[in-house]
This record gives sequence, C-alpha cells and structure tokens, in this order.
Amino acid sequence: MSLRTREQYLQHLKNMRPNIHKFGRLIEDVTTDPATKRVVESHARGIDAAHDPQLSEIFTTTSNLTGETIHRNTSLMTSAEEMVFNSRFKREMYHLTGSCTGALCVGWNGFNVMWSVTHDMDKELGTDYHARLKEWGLSLQEKGLLVAGALTDAKGNRKLKPHQQPDLDCTLRIVEKRDDGVVIRGAKVMICGVAAADEIFLMPGSGYRQEDQDFALVCVVPRDIEGLTIVEARHPSDSRELEEGFDCPTETGITQAYLFFEDVFVPKERVFMAGEFKYTGAVVTRFTATYRSCIGACVAGQGDVMVGAAALIARANGLNAKIFRDKLIQMEVNNETTFTMGVGAIALGQKHPSGVWLADNLTAHGNKVHVATLPYETKRLTQEIGGGIVETGCLPSFQDFSSPEYGHLIRKYLTAGAGSAETRARLARLIEWLTIGGGVPGCMHGGGSPDGARMVVFALSPLEKYTDMAKRLAGVEEDLQDQ
Amino acid sequence: MSLRTREQYLQHLKNMRPNIHKFGRLIEDVTTDPATKRVVESHARGIDAAHDPQLSEIFTTTSNLTGETIHRNTSLMTSAEEMVFNSRFKREMYHLTGSCTGALCVGWNGFNVMWSVTHDMDKELGTDYHARLKEWGLSLQEKGLLVAGALTDAKGNRKLKPHQQPDLDCTLRIVEKRDDGVVIRGAKVMICGVAAADEIFLMPGSGYRQEDQDFALVCVVPRDIEGLTIVEARHPSDSRELEEGFDCPTETGITQAYLFFEDVFVPKERVFMAGEFKYTGAVVTRFTATYRSCIGACVAGQGDVMVGAAALIARANGLNAKIFRDKLIQMEVNNETTFTMGVGAIALGQKHPSGVWLADNLTAHGNKVHVATLPYETKRLTQEIGGGIVETGCLPSFQDFSSPEYGHLIRKYLTAGAGSAETRARLARLIEWLTIGGGVPGCMHGGGSPDGARMVVFALSPLEKYTDMAKRLAGVEEDLQDQ
Amino acid sequence: MSLRTREQYLQHLKNMRPNIHKFGRLIEDVTTDPATKRVVESHARGIDAAHDPQLSEIFTTTSNLTGETIHRNTSLMTSAEEMVFNSRFKREMYHLTGSCTGALCVGWNGFNVMWSVTHDMDKELGTDYHARLKEWGLSLQEKGLLVAGALTDAKGNRKLKPHQQPDLDCTLRIVEKRDDGVVIRGAKVMICGVAAADEIFLMPGSGYRQEDQDFALVCVVPRDIEGLTIVEARHPSDSRELEEGFDCPTETGITQAYLFFEDVFVPKERVFMAGEFKYTGAVVTRFTATYRSCIGACVAGQGDVMVGAAALIARANGLNAKIFRDKLIQMEVNNETTFTMGVGAIALGQKHPSGVWLADNLTAHGNKVHVATLPYETKRLTQEIGGGIVETGCLPSFQDFSSPEYGHLIRKYLTAGAGSAETRARLARLIEWLTIGGGVPGCMHGGGSPDGARMVVFALSPLEKYTDMAKRLAGVEEDLQDQ
Amino acid sequence: MSLRTREQYLQHLKNMRPNIHKFGRLIEDVTTDPATKRVVESHARGIDAAHDPQLSEIFTTTSNLTGETIHRNTSLMTSAEEMVFNSRFKREMYHLTGSCTGALCVGWNGFNVMWSVTHDMDKELGTDYHARLKEWGLSLQEKGLLVAGALTDAKGNRKLKPHQQPDLDCTLRIVEKRDDGVVIRGAKVMICGVAAADEIFLMPGSGYRQEDQDFALVCVVPRDIEGLTIVEARHPSDSRELEEGFDCPTETGITQAYLFFEDVFVPKERVFMAGEFKYTGAVVTRFTATYRSCIGACVAGQGDVMVGAAALIARANGLNAKIFRDKLIQMEVNNETTFTMGVGAIALGQKHPSGVWLADNLTAHGNKVHVATLPYETKRLTQEIGGGIVETGCLPSFQDFSSPEYGHLIRKYLTAGAGSAETRARLARLIEWLTIGGGVPGCMHGGGSPDGARMVVFALSPLEKYTDMAKRLAGVEEDLQDQ
Repeated sequence: MSLRTREQYLQHLKNMRPNIHKFGRLIEDVTTDPATKRVVESHARGIDAAHDPQLSEIFTTTSNLTGETIHRNTSLMTSAEEMVFNSRFKREMYHLTGSCTGALCVGWNGFNVMWSVTHDMDKELGTDYHARLKEWGLSLQEKGLLVAGALTDAKGNRKLKPHQQPDLDCTLRIVEKRDDGVVIRGAKVMICGVAAADEIFLMPGSGYRQEDQDFALVCVVPRDIEGLTIVEARHPSDSRELEEGFDCPTETGITQAYLFFEDVFVPKERVFMAGEFKYTGAVVTRFTATYRSCIGACVAGQGDVMVGAAALIARANGLNAKIFRDKLIQMEVNNETTFTMGVGAIALGQKHPSGVWLADNLTAHGNKVHVATLPYETKRLTQEIGGGIVETGCLPSFQDFSSPEYGHLIRKYLTAGAGSAETRARLARLIEWLTIGGGVPGCMHGGGSPDGARMVVFALSPLEKYTDMAKRLAGVEEDLQDQ
Repeated sequence: MSLRTREQYLQHLKNMRPNIHKFGRLIEDVTTDPATKRVVESHARGIDAAHDPQLSEIFTTTSNLTGETIHRNTSLMTSAEEMVFNSRFKREMYHLTGSCTGALCVGWNGFNVMWSVTHDMDKELGTDYHARLKEWGLSLQEKGLLVAGALTDAKGNRKLKPHQQPDLDCTLRIVEKRDDGVVIRGAKVMICGVAAADEIFLMPGSGYRQEDQDFALVCVVPRDIEGLTIVEARHPSDSRELEEGFDCPTETGITQAYLFFEDVFVPKERVFMAGEFKYTGAVVTRFTATYRSCIGACVAGQGDVMVGAAALIARANGLNAKIFRDKLIQMEVNNETTFTMGVGAIALGQKHPSGVWLADNLTAHGNKVHVATLPYETKRLTQEIGGGIVETGCLPSFQDFSSPEYGHLIRKYLTAGAGSAETRARLARLIEWLTIGGGVPGCMHGGGSPDGARMVVFALSPLEKYTDMAKRLAGVEEDLQDQ
Repeated sequence: MSLRTREQYLQHLKNMRPNIHKFGRLIEDVTTDPATKRVVESHARGIDAAHDPQLSEIFTTTSNLTGETIHRNTSLMTSAEEMVFNSRFKREMYHLTGSCTGALCVGWNGFNVMWSVTHDMDKELGTDYHARLKEWGLSLQEKGLLVAGALTDAKGNRKLKPHQQPDLDCTLRIVEKRDDGVVIRGAKVMICGVAAADEIFLMPGSGYRQEDQDFALVCVVPRDIEGLTIVEARHPSDSRELEEGFDCPTETGITQAYLFFEDVFVPKERVFMAGEFKYTGAVVTRFTATYRSCIGACVAGQGDVMVGAAALIARANGLNAKIFRDKLIQMEVNNETTFTMGVGAIALGQKHPSGVWLADNLTAHGNKVHVATLPYETKRLTQEIGGGIVETGCLPSFQDFSSPEYGHLIRKYLTAGAGSAETRARLARLIEWLTIGGGVPGCMHGGGSPDGARMVVFALSPLEKYTDMAKRLAGVEEDLQDQ
Repeated sequence: MSLRTREQYLQHLKNMRPNIHKFGRLIEDVTTDPATKRVVESHARGIDAAHDPQLSEIFTTTSNLTGETIHRNTSLMTSAEEMVFNSRFKREMYHLTGSCTGALCVGWNGFNVMWSVTHDMDKELGTDYHARLKEWGLSLQEKGLLVAGALTDAKGNRKLKPHQQPDLDCTLRIVEKRDDGVVIRGAKVMICGVAAADEIFLMPGSGYRQEDQDFALVCVVPRDIEGLTIVEARHPSDSRELEEGFDCPTETGITQAYLFFEDVFVPKERVFMAGEFKYTGAVVTRFTATYRSCIGACVAGQGDVMVGAAALIARANGLNAKIFRDKLIQMEVNNETTFTMGVGAIALGQKHPSGVWLADNLTAHGNKVHVATLPYETKRLTQEIGGGIVETGCLPSFQDFSSPEYGHLIRKYLTAGAGSAETRARLARLIEWLTIGGGVPGCMHGGGSPDGARMVVFALSPLEKYTDMAKRLAGVEEDLQDQ
C-alpha cells in the first residue's frame, strides 16, 4: 500500500458525478472551477505534506489496524500523543493554506468517535456496527480518502424536537429501512470542504428520544451519491475568486456547502447507526470533546499567519515590526492559548475500551469559549498593526492597479519605502482575506456554538463540591440551598 | 433661501465631470452606476432627513452667519450643544443608512476647524484667510453642499518627514504659488464619500516645520476639478453591489477613494492655508478632537443596527431574543460608551475666540481607543447571537436561492418557524454586511490610528501632578526621577 | 454668611453625642479616635479646599436660593455645567484623600433629587414637602453641613417585598405617624462617611406599592439623634489604622457604617416623604442617574492616584516609568472613560421643572458597568507595574522595619537605587492600600449593583426601534416576534 | 520507610531554632504562634492528605530512586503524567487550604530542575553535583521533608548587574569558598511558606556572566541554620490573625518571608552550584517552565473555592445561585484555562536525559500571562455576585457582632432568609479573605513577572517562520526587513 498522491486525488475528484452548484450553475470539474479549485488546492497540500520529509511525521502514521503507513487523517488515535498530532496537523494545515480544510478533519474525527460508539452499541445491543465501520476504515486507510463530515441539520424551528417539526425533513432522517440499507431525506448545512472531499461522514444531533429514532443516523456516503444535491454557500468577497489578479490573494481557500438529500439510498455497509437514539448523546459528546480540543489549533494556525502578515505589513508600510511587539505578543499568547488548552484537554482525557482516545469534555468545551473570542482580538490587532489599508482592504482593485491609464498613479503612491507597491498591496489583501474576507473560517459556530460549550462547562463543573470546600474553609456547617 | 432637495443634489452630481474610476472603468454617472449609487443614496437620505419633520431638529439648524435655516452639516458649531448635534447627526445617519456618509461629516468638521485656525492665523500673521473661508462658508450654506474631507496623505516612507521623501509627491504639496492661487500635486487616500460629494476639503498632516512648508496646505476643491483623478477602493464583497438580488442587502453603502492630484490649480478664494506650517498642528489637533469625540456616535449608530439585527435574526432562527439579553446589553453598553464618552469630551471642551466650540483633546482621544476596540466586540456578539448562518454569511447566493432547479430546496431548509426563508436570508446578509462585509466602516484607522490617540492621552495626562498626589498621600518627600 | 472652616467643623463633631461603635467599643470623639479620625481628616480636606484659591472654583458656588457663596456640596445643581462640577468635586476629593468622602456626596445628591421629587409630589398631591425641604436646605447652606446619605436597607430575604418580610424591620419603616413627625425603625447598612457627617439623608428603595407605603420614607436626621446606634464596618487591614507607623500609609480614610434605628422620632420639618410610595421610583431613578454619572469621577480620581503611585514605585524600584507607558496609558484611558462618560450622561440630561438638572438615565447606568469593571483592571495594572512588593503588600511590618535588632537588614535590602528604603516602603504600602487595602472604596456595589444598571440599560434601550432600522435596511417587511 | 505524619512534622518544627520574626517579635513556636500557625496548618493538611485514601493517589507516589512510597512533593517527575500530578497536587492544596503552600511546591520543583542541571554540569564540567543532589534527595524522600524555595534576590538597582551593584549583597552571594563548603551573604525576599518549611532550596537569578560567578549559587539549608534571620512580611488584614473570632475566617493561611543571610556556612553536601554562572540560565528557564505550567493550577484551585463561595453567598443573601450562572461559568472557564493550558504546556514538553520531564517553555510562559490576569476577573465576579457585603468585607467586626449591647441588632439585620447571620458573615469574610484579604496569593509576580513571561513568548515564537508563511500565501517574493 502506498500513500495516495496529489495526482490520484485530483483524478478521483474529476471522475465524480458533478452535483455541486454555486452562483446558479453546476460545477463540472471541482479541480478547475474557480469557485472550488482553491479549496481543492488547500486539501491537495495536505496530501503533498504526507510526501514531504519535513512534514511526514505530522501527516502520516502507522495504522494500528494494518501496520501500514497511512495518511494520518485516516488513522485511529489511540493515545493522547496521537490526538495531539490531530492538533498539530490542523495548525500546520492552516500554515500551508491559511484557512480551513474540512475534508481533512471532520470525517477523521467521525471515524474515531464512531469507533468507540459502535463498540459500545454492539456490546450492549448485539449489533454489528463496529465490524462494518472497521471494514470501511480499512478501505479509507488503503485509499487515503478525504472525508468531510456533517452534523448540522437545517433544524427548522429550534424550539421543537425533530419529531415535532411541521416539516420532518428539517432534520436528516431515515424515511425507509430496507434489508440492504436505508433511504434518507433532509439536509445538512454549512459543511466545510465538501467540494474537496471524496466522501461525507453524516452524524446526528443529540438528545434524541424514542420518538426521534428516525433521526438517529450515522453513515458515510460518496460525495456524488445519487439523490444528493450540493450548493456551496457564499463567503465574504467570494466573487473575487472568479476574477483575475491578486484581489483574492491566495491559491487556497475554503468552502461551506448545503447538502440536500432527496431519498438517497445508503447501503448498510456504510450505515453505523440507524435508530439507536440512545447513543446520539455519546456521538455528539465525544465528537465535540475532540473537535473543541483541536479546533484551538486551527485558529492558532491562522493566528500564526496573522502574526507573520502583521509583521510584514508593518515593514511594507515603512516601519519596524518591533514597534508593535506588545501587540504581536498578545496575538501569540492568544494563539498558544487555544492550541495549548486544547492539548491540555487531550492530555486530561482517557482511553476508551475500544482503543481510541477521548479528550476531556469539560476543558475541551472551555477551550471553545476561547476559540469563539480570542481570534477576534487577534484579527483586530492585525488590523490595528496594518493600518487603514488593511482594515477594510481599502485599496483599489487589481484592474485599477493595472490600469494603463492611471495604474501608475496607484503604484506610485502605494510605495512606502520597503518593497514594491505590489508587495504592499498583496499583503494588505492577505490581511483583508484573513480578517474580513474569504479566509475567515466559521470557527465560532463550527462544531457548535460557544453558548452550548458554556452550558457544558457549567454542567460538568462540580458546583456542590466547590461549595463544600468553601463551607469547610469558612467554618460554615449550615446547609444552604438556592432560594 | 430654501433647503436643498434630493433632486437638486442628484442633478448636481449628474452634471459633474466624470473623473471617478472603479474596476478599471470610468463611472459616467455616480447616481446610477452600481459601484457608487449606494453611497449616493446614503447621502441623499441625509438630505431627505432635513425635510422630515421628525428629524429636522437634528438635520437643520439656524445659521449664525445669516440667520437662515440651513442643513446642519454646513453649520458652524458655536456651543457644546451644537456639537452634540454633530454626534446625534452621525448616529442617526447610521440608523438611516447602516454605514458611513463621509461627505456629510468631514468637510463640516474641516469648515469648523478652519474657522478657528484662520482666525488665529489672521490675528497673528495679518492674513485674510478667515474672510475667504467665511465667503466660501456662506456659499456652502446657501447651496447646502456636501463636502468630503481629506487628510491622509500617501505618506511614502513613514520614517521620513515630507521634505525628506525621495518622492516629494508622497505628501500633497504646493508646486507653484501664483497670485491667483496655488498649483498642487500629490494624493490623498482612503477618503470616504467622495463619490457622493460636491466638493472636497483638503487638510494637511501635522508636525511640519519650515522645511515642510510646501505641504502646509488647506483648500477646498470641486470634486470634478481639472487634474484630479479618483479611484474608488474596494471593500469586502463589493462585487455583490454589481449583482442582482439581496446578497448585497442594502440600497445604501460606503465608498473610500484614492485622489490623485496632477498639478491642479486652486484659486486663492478656496485656499485657507498655504505655507503656514506652524498652524498644521492646530488643524490636526482641533480636527481630531472633534472627530474622535463624534466618531463614537458613528460606531454607536451602527451598533444600534446590530442590536436590532441580532434580535431579529434570533427570532428568524426560531428563538426568543431575550435568551441573548446579556449579550444585547453588552452591545448596548458598548454603543452608549463611545457615544456618551464623546458627548462628555464635547462637554469638557471650550469656546474658541473665533466663536466655534472645540472639544476636549485628552478625552476625545481616549474615546478613540474605545472606537477602535468596542465595535469589534459588538460585531463578535452579533455573530454569536446570529449563529453559523451569519458568521461568514454562510448561505447560498441569490442566484442559487432563486434557482428554478434547486432553489426550492434552499428555501425549504432555511425556513425556521418564524418568517420566510427570504426574511431569514436577508437578515443574515445584513449581519454579514455589517460585521464582515461591505458595511464595515474604517473607524479604527479613520481619522488616525488608535496608537496615535494613545500617545495623545499619555502626552496630555499630567503624570507629574499624579505622582505629586501619590507622594503627598504616602508621606513621601523625596524627589524620585526615572532611573 | 461665611464659609464654614475646618475648626468649626471639627468642633461640631466633637460636640455630638457619641453613638458610633467599632471593635466592640464606643467612640467618644470621632476626630481623634484612630478608627474614625482618618475619615474625618478626609472630609476636613474638602472644607479646607473651599478656602483654597486654587480649588475654590470647584469647592464653592453661589446659592441660587440666597445669592450667597456656599460650599458646593450644599448647592442645588441647576444646569449640566453645575452637575459636571459634582464630578470634578469628586475627582478632586480623591486626589486630596485617595478614597471616598461620602458625607460630601450622597446627602448633596439627595437634596437635589428631593428638590425635584417634592416639587412633583406637592404639585400632584398638594403636600408641602418642597417648602420644608427648602427650609432645611437654607439651613444646610448657611451652616455648610456635611450630610451622609443612606439608601441601602438590610433587605432581609431579597425575594420578598418589604411588607412580605417575616421581620418588617428589614426595611427602614414608619412605625408611627404623629402630627409633629414620624417614628421610624429599621436599619441602613454600609453607609459611607457617617462618622464624618453632621447629618444623614435617608432615602427609600423603589418599586413600592400601596402595601409598602410605610417604607416610603425620606427624611434627614442629625447623626447623633436619639435612638440611633451606629456600628462602623471593617475594611481590609483596618487594624493598621490603630497602629504606629506607615503600614497604614495615609492620614485619610474611609468608613462604612451600619445604622440601627430603634423607634427614632423625626420631626416633620425634616420629613420629605412619608407614605407616598408612588414616588419612590422617582427618588431612586433620579438618585442613581446622578450618582452613576458622577461615581465615574470617584474611580477616575483614585485611578489618577494609582497612575502616580505606579510611576513612582517604578522609579523607587530603580526603573524608568516610561517602560510601563502602555500600561499607564491603559490606566489613564480607564480613568478618563468613567469620568467622561459620566460627564456625557450629564450633558445628555435635562432640566426638571423644579429647576434642578437631571442626568440621563440610560447612559448613566451604562457608565456604572464600567465603574464596576475598569477600576479592577487599573488596580491589576498598578500591581503589575509595582512588582511583588506591592501585589499583596509583601514587606515587613513597620515594627520590623524599625527593629533595633534587624531593622537595618530590611532597610539595607529594600534600597533599590532611587530613594530611601522608607520611600519605597511607603509607596508599596500606598499601592497596597489603594488596590487591596483600606483605601478600596465600595464602588462596584455602592449606589446599587452593576447587574441592576445592566437591567436599566436594557429597559431603556429602544430595542424595537433598532429592529425596525434593521428591517428597513435589510428590506424585510415581515413582522418577527419572539418565538 | 513510612510516610511522615502530621505529628512528626509539627514536632520537627517545634524543635527548630527560633529565627523567624514578625511584628517586631521573635516567634518561639511556629506551630502555635498566631502569625504562623495558619501556614503550618495549611502545610499539615498536605501531609494529612498523603494518608487519606481518597487523596493518596495525588499526594503520594513511588520513588523512582528507591521504589518506596513517598510524599509526592519529594518525587522526581519523570513523565508528563507525573508532572500533571504536580498541577493536580497544587489545585487540591488550594481546595484544602484556600491559599498557597509554598513549602510543598518550590523546593520540589527546585529538586527536579537541579536534577537535570547537575546532570548537565557534571557531564560537561566533570563536577559531582548530581551525586550530591541524589544523596540529599534520598534523605528528602526518606524524611518527607517540606522544602520552601527561594529565587528572588533583593536585587538593588534593577538596571545594574549583580557585580555592578554598589552593595554586592543585594544578590545572594558566595563570600568565601572553603574545602568543606561555602559562606554566603545576602537576602532572598518574599518567600512563601518558610515558616512551615523544614528546609529552603536557594536558587539564583539568570543571565549571569563570568563577573557574576559569585552569585551563581544553588544550595539547600535548614530553615534554622545559624546566621539566617527571617522576617515574615505582612499581608492584607494580617492583624486579624491575632484576633479572636471569624474575621480571619480560616484556620489556614499563607506567609511570605524575607531571609537575611549573614555569612552563613553551607556544607558542600548541600551545595549544587557554586560559581558555574553558565548554568544559571538553565536553572531559571527550567524552573519557570514547570512553575508557570503548574501555577495555573494554584489560581484554578483558589478560583474553584471562589466559585463555591460565590454560589453560597448568593444563597445566604437569599437568592438562587443560578441567577449568576453566566458569571459562574466565566469563573469556571477562567479556572480551567490556567489549569488546562498548564497541562498542555506539560504535555508539549520533553524528557531530559537525566530522566526528569521538562515542560514546554513557550506555552508555559503564555500561561503565566493568564495567571496574571484571569484571577483578577474571577475575583471581580466573585465580588459582583456577593454584593456590597463582600466587596470590601463591609460588615462589623466580630467584637461588634458579639457585643452584648448591640450585637443582636447586627445579627438581626444580617439575617437574609437563608441561613443564620453568622453563616452569612462567615461567607462574606471568606470572600473578603479570598479576593482582597489575607488569602490572596502573590501569583502575578510569584515566580517572576508577567512582562518577563511575555518577553519569553516573543523570543520563542518563530516570527520569521510566520512571515515566511504569510509571504507564501500572499505570493510575495521580496524580502522585507524592519525599516
């Protein structure tokens, strides 16, 4: 078995059935269409990295199933150390691409989470999900597939349970159970990296009861499965991706898709939960524990790029980056905080009997609160260092910059003593892209909202244990209850 | 004299010489071109407001020069109360348009600042600038003109003084002094509202010495003056302004221009400083004092819209806005802080012998620090309340939304129990526009950077007075100096 | 009429009936007892200031009732400018004393608030409270009295209304109405400056209904009135006030008292509300509007002293204060924020028909949120600049410092290159006192809690007006209600 | 070998030579003197915990030197897991005592750090320090000694190197090298837990060069060694420790001492560095890496107590703690942040060839920034929840509370519906002690200042690597240097 290459990957994408749309049109080839080629390039860099001797420690590992060298994003993480590599992988991917590569991330996590959940289900219910998943996993590792992952349902009225919705399709659901599989209908929304994915790992929401059993669904589908229509969402300044020049400054990019399932048949070999509502809580709990531990690495990685970009634009503006040392330090502290607190949450986790590592829930969710706030400060500081030119990307378009009529005026007046006008313009565009443009990932709400994380922190913190400590220290013996 | 109307205003704009470019092309009519019509609409609403009985208290006043009723943005502000109306005017303009209307703001401030500076210059130097300015001011009030204002030079290498720059044009300068006026060359950059302006008020940087006297220039020029080439800068998602549908959700908008002066002749009646370098400090000091007092009203006004939009999207998501009460309160506190601290800085100001009011410098600059930080928190909270759909505007394009083929799927799944899919989509687009899109104004660096404001705070705070207090309280008699 | 002097003031305090206790003992003379002499000294400095030509603009004014020159803290504030002097007065008092002088503050505010409320009551109810209050006010101005003020009741169970409490005394109440006055019982707690006061202005809570009419009480009593027992609360490190040496570094100080009224008779001339429950809301609303506007000046004034102390300790530690420029700026911005936002709230207020000025409620309460947070950052920065020696006042006691046996060792090793060991120690003690010691005022909860202020901000912000703006901008026509 | 007991520990302290002073007097018996008995009690609880089945996993471990069960605080930490137990130990000690127990902490860290440094020194220099340290370590483990640790020198003028100081004693130094040991002179200041310690681990500052070799000293001395004079520093409200009643609410406490060495002879068996200036950097770097990783657990542990105390006082005030859920969550997030980021820094560390684990430097120092800021927010929130009664401990003294004359009034009016007046008073005193009283540890500056940590973050962050990333992403090829 040899590691998949960029060429193999791109060829596979080209071979798929076109089912992705944007701007009202069908995308024939995701690898060349300007609306999707950047996200494909981003993911391709993750594949390249596995072949790069300096990065292969992060991007490959040895399969605990086969002993073969595999792409790390197809691995089972059986220790804290291996899960920390998930964080390192993510931070490095941001270094390589500047933004989010969802198809190297969510499916990987889903595979690991379901490894433990199917283990538990089979043990209690006598099902054979674990074996099915292992079979799929072996194929995943062998082919080095990229698997996006989808949890977020359309939800409908958020005050109603799935089975109470006027339109039951609001939550992705099983409309028919057959001997050879299930037929599903509904939508998953805002899914990262779908255009660059080979397959999509579908997972449910949590807190489902008996009445919601049709919504308790886990399966994996090829991205181009029959009956699946995909529409890529917009993101800021995405039209620039269709333009010439450097106003979209990067060759990389992010996509977030809406997936519409219209009675899609999924064969049972690819189904890992179908009705076992009781286990939806475990799916979401374990998924978010890892996800919220490691997403701190994503925003740290992008923050690292902002530190670099801020230092550069300071120089391009004719200044010394050291003038902004205190701001750069604050940015660095922010980056290390979300990364390191995530590593801490991993280190505080435990090994599941199935063999995979589970991060610590309480502290992982605490980290999410920082993921939802600190990057905003980092972006603000980047804009503050960069000056007016970066705050809203306030410089003329590439067409104007290149105008034979007056472009020379723009270039003349953008020159600031260090580097060319184009260098300064490119850096300003990069910062716009990172802080208020197409590179901004959806990390605040991705994988769930910070308020949800706060609720978990409250639920898992042992309040009464803490009140007991305080009572002992204060010499209080009375029992005090909420009034 | 009657107040100028929207029709008169639009007609005047149409009659001007086309000299504004964007996306590589010349804009023939700013009132209809999609790249500029929104900023014109924004400003036109300010003119409409003068005719609206509910708003005329804010948008009109009585001229202290003629006793006539005038558009407030052409007035001299002769008391703290009148200057507070500058703040009220700005907050209301954001309510009406959602974003920045620079041609209703900067020229107004420039007129007032120069009223005091020309008074001082004439008194000391025997010049006749004040009478010239009064003449221009009378015409301004009579015609109800909209005047953009420009301070920021291209600057070149920020470590060098203007006269030390390899390319002297980096700072707008007088290249020839003639009996009937001056010839100027250089650029002003990132200037708000130029496409909607009748005229442009040009002001210099500060700290100039004898050697920099050619850069000590204040004058007013028609926007379409010969020799002036204008290029409008990009802003986030500005291509959407050229599209159909609601992906650019508003009819209003903001522009920021680069102005290139190639040996432009300005007649002396429009020149209010030409070489008196000593007074450049007064221009900038007085300009920023007012500007940084009142800009708190701008971000407050946009923050008010965010409060409203956040409450609405919560409802459109099928929730109760009250769930987010604490976040809404924090947003409201932020808004009232920048507004009210600005009002306080005005109240702490003083009347200049020329008759106009000057805001307090120290506290005005303190306010700028908040203007550069609090709106970022307000935006973050708006995104937090709005959910994933607003964080990066993560929903399909209008073309997809309207697709005959699959648009029904998008609309079906965007429905969330309260309001139509379109309502939810429009609100999400509005929040994207406000927080990470085309509506974000450049308030952090507009009118100067927060670090500059911090330096002013430090310079104007009486540190040794404070150390004396501390010594007296601590019973310390020794003199302590920095080591 | 001539302005009261320090000597007259101290003599009056000496002549009063001893009814104040601390540490289990009765204080015979508040002007000399170590537990109270510092708070008396603080207030005496406010009287001195009226006689100081450099400060008299702040500390005196002309009575609008008599035309005489009076202590400003006995004045009616009839304009925004005069109310801004309330803020200036408070900031200056902190400069002079380092901490809170409640008897120069709360009664003054109470007098002004009741000037407007009695006006309204008389107009609607035909009572004669306003004339009574004027009579008292004339005497106040003539004698230059210091009047503490008391709002906070013991409250009992906070979930019950006053009339529902098992012990009705929990809220100060009228137990008997007589022709010549009222008999009152109950407690007021945590009242600043009582030991330095001539009289005490008693005011009720708000939201009272018919059943609570006995609690609707406003009156003024001499501090030593029969039946009133006073116990001064502790504050951090207050035992040091009883010690020799500089471990309590200042000659000034703060006190907060518990007042116990055991069937105290108050003659009707001193009663300004007795049962008119409907007006308790106006009392509290107007009181807090002024109080929360001006309390920003208190924390600013103490923050100014911290700026000075921080710069000095840096020098005493052998460093250059400029190293900490960014931190000092942040402290200065914090100080100017609470001060200036308060001034803004005043400027946004309005004149009441009775003649006094009322500050703006919404923004005054917004300011309270900052008063409850920014000083904590200022203190933290002061401790950060000062180093380990100040963080917890971590240096030996004065007794050890002066020890004939080993004091020389302490002094030897405290010397740091600039100034003597004693200077360094005194400054460290001052910072301890300001940040974690006896000088810390109760500004977070004084005059009500920040959460109460937040509720007012929410209640007074026009949420539906803001949603209307957002709807218009987004082109949304549907009505959206909370779900 | 059996684990030391509380009785053995107390007896050993009693047997020591009295050499500790406070308030001008010599403390004869640290276990009973009110100025020191609380810190002894705190440490004794750490010894008890080793015998408590529920806590022994944290408080004991197996010696890697002897295989015996030992007190964990005498262990060598040979893996990340074992170092995480250092964090758990500290958090638990705060749970048990509410404050700092330095003699269970710093010496432990010093032992581990020197294990690695002596290994390196011996390897390069051929010295025998490692064997000496091992010998001492075996005795440490056998006896279960408590070892305080001291790094901070008096320093003198902070701008001068040790050898440049006018008074060389400002830095603890070797005044004589003898065959059998060294004679040392100078001071160590602000040292935690000395009064409860058996021995003291002395370590140097860093950055020393050849000329500073006499200051390159590491050794361990008995606390009562001849020639050592100790003075305990004050802390807020420490006089209350000498009083009756609950105004000092806890039986536990913290001390910080000044140590004066007047030509103290230390035998060579206890000397682990004597002149090898080159290694002082390693000592400090490795010490702070562990220390700043694990100190996050200290402030987390105290924060946990604040969460409990805040919930309790809310109840004692007659409210429901859930009202304050958002504030409690923020406190919990703060606590988990400093704890978990510290754990992450440990997990990112590496094993030293000598066998001990070294935490990651960059992220450990990043954590220190949070340790210096987040607890201040946690304290503020505790005070906000608690109300006026806790903000400055604003309630009468125990003597007044118990007064036969008027104590009943205090108790009557402190009753608030849930629990007795005494319970409410005790809780208020506990919060005062935790937030503004004797329980506040010196964590901001303890183990070095946050600005020092920020410098390390800046130095260790790979800025040029980050600029390279940004250049690649922006398509910039020019080299840009600081101007």
